[in-house]
Amino acid sequence: MKIFMIGEAANHAGILAASLQQPHEIVPLSREAAQSDAHDGLIGAGDVVISLRLKRTGNPFPPVRLLHVPGAGLDGIDFGSLAPDTAICNVFEHEIPIAEYVLSAMLEWEIRAVEMRRTFTPETWPDVYRERVPHGEIYGKTLCVVGFGRIGRAIATRAKAFGMRILALDAYAGDLGPADEILPPQELDRLLPEVDYLVLACPLTKATTGLIGKAQLVAMKPTAVLINISRAEIADEASLFEALAQKTIGGACLDVWYRYPAGSSDRVEPSSFPFHTLENAVCTPHSSAWTRQLPQRRYAFIAENLNRLARGEPLRNVVRAPGAGPAK
Amino acid sequence: MKIFMIGEAANHAGILAASLQQPHEIVPLSREAAQSDAHDGLIGAGDVVISLRLKRTGNPFPPVRLLHVPGAGLDGIDFGSLAPDTAICNVFEHEIPIAEYVLSAMLEWEIRAVEMRRTFTPETWPDVYRERVPHGEIYGKTLCVVGFGRIGRAIATRAKAFGMRILALDAYAGDLGPADEILPPQELDRLLPEVDYLVLACPLTKATTGLIGKAQLVAMKPTAVLINISRAEIADEASLFEALAQKTIGGACLDVWYRYPAGSSDRVEPSSFPFHTLENAVCTPHSSAWTRQLPQRRYAFIAENLNRLARGEPLRNVVRAPGAGPAK
Repeated sequence: MKIFMIGEAANHAGILAASLQQPHEIVPLSREAAQSDAHDGLIGAGDVVISLRLKRTGNPFPPVRLLHVPGAGLDGIDFGSLAPDTAICNVFEHEIPIAEYVLSAMLEWEIRAVEMRRTFTPETWPDVYRERVPHGEIYGKTLCVVGFGRIGRAIATRAKAFGMRILALDAYAGDLGPADEILPPQELDRLLPEVDYLVLACPLTKATTGLIGKAQLVAMKPTAVLINISRAEIADEASLFEALAQKTIGGACLDVWYRYPAGSSDRVEPSSFPFHTLENAVCTPHSSAWTRQLPQRRYAFIAENLNRLARGEPLRNVVRAPGAGPAK
Repeated sequence: MKIFMIGEAANHAGILAASLQQPHEIVPLSREAAQSDAHDGLIGAGDVVISLRLKRTGNPFPPVRLLHVPGAGLDGIDFGSLAPDTAICNVFEHEIPIAEYVLSAMLEWEIRAVEMRRTFTPETWPDVYRERVPHGEIYGKTLCVVGFGRIGRAIATRAKAFGMRILALDAYAGDLGPADEILPPQELDRLLPEVDYLVLACPLTKATTGLIGKAQLVAMKPTAVLINISRAEIADEASLFEALAQKTIGGACLDVWYRYPAGSSDRVEPSSFPFHTLENAVCTPHSSAWTRQLPQRRYAFIAENLNRLARGEPLRNVVRAPGAGPAK
């Protein structure tokens, strides 16, 4: 069994190799191999491919045992380009850093440590100490998590330990877990007036595009904070900017944006609106999941799946079982 | 039963009154009443006093049913100034904001959202997105909490939900709670090489003064972070400054200081060393517990204790039962 690592995945061959129980030949391929058949002669039916992208317009990709996507999203994979017998697996682990980012955002919103540090010097100390301005707490506040999948649950688990009240909105209820209630998405408008922190953790679909629009922002508390770590378009761009500029809501922590650079020299602004100029908007560059530990965990997980494959055991995180293709 | 509220306590009469089950006369007294007998004629044996401070050099304070301290610390109370039949109670609740502050400090240490925000503008967006620098996670890291009382446990409960490994150091083991291990204080030096975050949450005593000295700082990981929300003197001032300046340890988040202003016009610096000039020292002005919600919870707790007293039920948080005085 050879392991072909395409594009960025090849950077992590060392992590993968370190977690393999038996040695396999690891072959790095350039990112072009995701679209081009130039290297297909190297690839055999007993091999495995690791790639975030795979799409063929001419001949399909050669049959392999497994395509392991080294991320959660499957938008880079054309299922029709793969042989029906090729299994497809993906990998998560980003729920951990995203949940840490969300809790950090809520805590800093209440504590304002940045402001504490800014005003505190050896010279100001006696006055700052005597005139300390009290800050806030997340304890007892109501958190509404829109989308109660892995990410929503990881956020809720942590928030629960702080004594927050957790409302989860999801069409698929599943077990209650750390939530106080799981409610169907249609309940959103009814809940909004109770919510202190509204976290968007659902996928972007037709149903969730513009889910948070003018009516929802008006229904929110004037102190409420929107946190978006999913996809920008779930909150309507113009309505969100207006709500923040006019302080209809308390603020927003935004890690995802309305426009992304496409190539290596593309110049594009993150939004048509100057969110950065608003003092109640905390803007970060789609970094919530981007940790040093994420590839470590992801490639260790992939290696464990390859160990299972070698031992003939069932794979984890199967997106498409062998024989279930080619239709998505 | 009259309720005398001395000094700063009198500012919170409204919160107290709102939680009393039956009306009582509430009498505010100036802070001088803690030392002076000028108002003692007003105070009867069936009454209650709420004060952070009480010390008499001449005649003792008139006998009352209860002195309720509206904080945790009893250093402002001279037990010998009180009649033996006066019960003494205190109140906590600050473990909640302190735990939130500590988790926020650890998360920001890893995530560096301040730096993310600083470098992210509409103009820099394409480059920042393409060259994102990965940050860290608290997941899987080792937290050592020195002092496993209310504050240490509140920190550990929250940290556990993030998947941290929790080592608690305390002479009184108690139940394990959210800790992975509770160890006696003598184990500190042995544990230090394993610790990522060392949180000081023990009281200042002879045994804990200078507990973290040069030898301990040298034993810590070069990436380890010290967080002090207890009393500054638990970490030796000169040794801590040197360890930070020379980067023997990764950093420190310091909310407590070596010198405090005594009066309303006292000028004093927080330390003899310029901690503020160190980029690896996060310095805040003894604010971790200072939230809007803290007096709300504390005076609601005191009111509930007064309701218990009126109903003849046992009091909560009894520091000294009636008849146990006057010796401390």
